[in-house]
Amino acid sequence: VQVVTDWRTGTTDDVRAAYDRARGEYSALRARGLKLNLGRGKPSEEQLDLSNALLSLPGDGDYRAADGTDCRNYGGVQGLPEIRAIFAPMLGAPVEQVIAAGNASLTLMHDAMAFALRHGVAGGRPWAEQGPVTFLCPVPGYDRHFTICDGHGVRMLTVPLTGHGPDMDAVESIAGGDASVKGMWCVPKYSNPTGEVYADEVVERLARMKTAAPDFRLFWDNAYGVHHLTPQGREIANILALAERHGNADRPFVFASTSKITFAGSGVAFFASSAANVKWMLGHLERATIGPDKINQLRHARLLKDANGLAAHMQKHARSLAPKFQAVDRVFTARLGGAGIAAWTRPEGGYFVSLDVMKGCATRTIALAKDAGIVVVPAGSTFPYGSDPEDRNIRIAPSYPTLEEVELAAEGLALSVLVAAGEAVLAQRGEAVATR
Amino acid sequence: VQVVTDWRTGTTDDVRAAYDRARGEYSALRARGLKLNLGRGKPSEEQLDLSNALLSLPGDGDYRAADGTDCRNYGGVQGLPEIRAIFAPMLGAPVEQVIAAGNASLTLMHDAMAFALRHGVAGGRPWAEQGPVTFLCPVPGYDRHFTICDGHGVRMLTVPLTGHGPDMDAVESIAGGDASVKGMWCVPKYSNPTGEVYADEVVERLARMKTAAPDFRLFWDNAYGVHHLTPQGREIANILALAERHGNADRPFVFASTSKITFAGSGVAFFASSAANVKWMLGHLERATIGPDKINQLRHARLLKDANGLAAHMQKHARSLAPKFQAVDRVFTARLGGAGIAAWTRPEGGYFVSLDVMKGCATRTIALAKDAGIVVVPAGSTFPYGSDPEDRNIRIAPSYPTLEEVELAAEGLALSVLVAAGEAVLAQRGEAVATR
Repeated sequence: VQVVTDWRTGTTDDVRAAYDRARGEYSALRARGLKLNLGRGKPSEEQLDLSNALLSLPGDGDYRAADGTDCRNYGGVQGLPEIRAIFAPMLGAPVEQVIAAGNASLTLMHDAMAFALRHGVAGGRPWAEQGPVTFLCPVPGYDRHFTICDGHGVRMLTVPLTGHGPDMDAVESIAGGDASVKGMWCVPKYSNPTGEVYADEVVERLARMKTAAPDFRLFWDNAYGVHHLTPQGREIANILALAERHGNADRPFVFASTSKITFAGSGVAFFASSAANVKWMLGHLERATIGPDKINQLRHARLLKDANGLAAHMQKHARSLAPKFQAVDRVFTARLGGAGIAAWTRPEGGYFVSLDVMKGCATRTIALAKDAGIVVVPAGSTFPYGSDPEDRNIRIAPSYPTLEEVELAAEGLALSVLVAAGEAVLAQRGEAVATR
Repeated sequence: VQVVTDWRTGTTDDVRAAYDRARGEYSALRARGLKLNLGRGKPSEEQLDLSNALLSLPGDGDYRAADGTDCRNYGGVQGLPEIRAIFAPMLGAPVEQVIAAGNASLTLMHDAMAFALRHGVAGGRPWAEQGPVTFLCPVPGYDRHFTICDGHGVRMLTVPLTGHGPDMDAVESIAGGDASVKGMWCVPKYSNPTGEVYADEVVERLARMKTAAPDFRLFWDNAYGVHHLTPQGREIANILALAERHGNADRPFVFASTSKITFAGSGVAFFASSAANVKWMLGHLERATIGPDKINQLRHARLLKDANGLAAHMQKHARSLAPKFQAVDRVFTARLGGAGIAAWTRPEGGYFVSLDVMKGCATRTIALAKDAGIVVVPAGSTFPYGSDPEDRNIRIAPSYPTLEEVELAAEGLALSVLVAAGEAVLAQRGEAVATR
């Protein structure tokens, strides 16, 4: 049994020995000229194959919705009732309060932000006319959320995640005291990248809290609502129902899509909210479109059939994905366990492992991995403005490569963590290290 | 042979007789309780059937683009090269200067307007920060263009159409003298609703003219680029090439879609422009999407194959549509010819007949038609702010109903024109008329 050195407290000789060993293995791995990518949360070909029936659906002569609508023609901005019915349970809203739109929930989020800034939310004045607009951003978070804020000139204020959702004392204090805080990003389930699931109490407090801005909105990106990695899955409290109970029915904008359920680029996106908010959203969407791709919505309804069909479909994804997440954990545990230089998540769903390395080491770790042919998103990606104040967080997306590639990439990344940490620890102790 | 009375110059007795006859026929028609719609330019079921192969395309196992891209996954904001190649000739742009996007060119127009207002066009300051923004609107025009302006607070200034494009003396004078004029709507081919085709000289002058605003843009909605009603078809000058030749390469934003080529709600939209403008557009689109529905683009490429396949496909549409347009003209000629109370277009392509009735009679004509179960778009729809200053123009869309229904609807509309005109002429002459 190998005795593991805690690099923070171990002797310099022990750290030096562990570092030299890691450096040697890293160099050998780098020499293999790998080309692996743990960067983007893309489904694998094996996962995409699960939905290949879409390639010939809805099929000859099948273009009528249950209500008789010819899905081939214009119209129906709210989307097909049958596809809304399948996703309504996941969204926690009645079918009438669900919009089925185009292929990207990101577009709905972007548009909701643009509409709120320019026209105001339902019953409110334009955000852009009320002075600076601030959004709360739990961190680490999703870079594309931050890009939407940045592109619209919305200031971002970070709040820490706790492992079961954002630090609600911080959220309540800031949102309650600053009327420029018009909204907050939330990925409430299997969060990107930490994988955490918002506790019921957190959801309750988000629904209930007093906000200085009367037109405050939760941008509730439930991107991974049915994306379990375990057979049992996790549930979250219903933000729409809780908000309504606390007299804040119009607070949550709920977003989701089939991007990681069927074909990533060819899915259906959803918006669910209060009746007033749905009316508001439709009113704005109607100026930009005559309606969504209803044939694609029918295609999806034919594939998934109902909420049970959706659940069964997601179990197939889990069977493909879970071993990859287990591989990352297995490799990290073997390589990094007990060394005190890294912590990582063991998510029960979603698409990411969040890896925290020693303070100041994320950029170097990522550069080492890149040199060894292993790509992850740039350091800082999980923070607003691309800036991780402690340079610690690394997002890992194990979905796209094969299981063997994930194992190899995790090895390489773990070795990069060790090398970067060794350099830092030895430098701290005044030791010389060659960094190439 | 019936001698036709010109109602403007005929005796009051003759007008009264013609009016009474029309009133009687109108009442009989109204009693039939028809339910016909000439309102929206929707393809008919027969037309949609032409593309039914899309319902099972691309087909089992077919998801790779020519360059090897797995179309099922994320990415590729500019869209598939093969679908861009099919439409590049129609758009008059090299493939690299074409973006293939989602299902609605209207969305691209809406977004281009929003991006220009908020961020400025390529190399320019945000339009919204430069004071009021004005768009030139040739009239009669497309109501959804006007809605985009209205929704963004953009002022609309009308310029008359001449039968071969906008009155260029007026356009040059206004755009050349008023720096708030940042853009202009153009439907250059088989225009909505007049059906006119911009003359080469008009396109040349639009490309060449001096504009007071250096960041002026033509919103060139070539919605009917291949939508001929005649075997030979009409061509227009290449606005992108001409603008480049005159040193105004960044002036035109060209829009188009397959909405009236394949399935109206499930098509592919296009944007074509200068390299700088394409880069600008992609930069903004990238914040709102990870990419378009590439499987739908592949599906369309499989159906249409190439520009020749597209042309052959459009000939099938023409065979279905042309008899409906001929029916409208035949009925109008029989009912209204020589009476001097109405003029209408005989388009060689596109989706609309534009009917001008006597000054002040459009609202009444449309109300009479509606009472008889024949729906057209509300009076004023073809003008900014829904306001036709002379209350004369009525847009007719004969595509959706069957040929028999079109004939019947045209009869009813013609009778409504006669009744409304009779009321007006007789009232002008101090005669009593019962208007119910």
